[in-house]
Amino acid sequence: MRATVLVRPKPGILDPQGQAVESSLRHLGFKVSDARIGRLVDVDLATDDKAEALAQLERMCEQLLTNPLIESYEIELEHA
Amino acid sequence: MRATVLVRPKPGILDPQGQAVESSLRHLGFKVSDARIGRLVDVDLATDDKAEALAQLERMCEQLLTNPLIESYEIELEHA
Repeated sequence: MRATVLVRPKPGILDPQGQAVESSLRHLGFKVSDARIGRLVDVDLATDDKAEALAQLERMCEQLLTNPLIESYEIELEHA
Repeated sequence: MRATVLVRPKPGILDPQGQAVESSLRHLGFKVSDARIGRLVDVDLATDDKAEALAQLERMCEQLLTNPLIESYEIELEHA
């Protein structure tokens, strides 16, 4: 089963990369505010069970993919 | 209008960060394959018109947010 994990800086956490992108977009003439940069992880899981996949992905996020102090995550499952 | 741009390495483009994550996940005991790392940009647009927002986001992607040679992007709009 294919899944995507979206990782974002938590509200209130400084995001200098997002500030740089926002400033650059404004210089290019775009009317934007509050740009934030996160990352995404696409991964193929061996299991096809949705509950099992979610449980595994949550453990991956806690153990490796995110820093829970400063980042929040969102899990999206795609059916194969 | 709030929008999210998902940026991924194109198929065939080497993704050493994804390989490192995949290898680490396996060492932790997860059965995964083909991990790929991308990034996401959350941004607030001044416009509330969907077509206008999409057009602006495509221009942002071409001008600043992505490298079209090696990355693909996907735009998600959220209504305010």
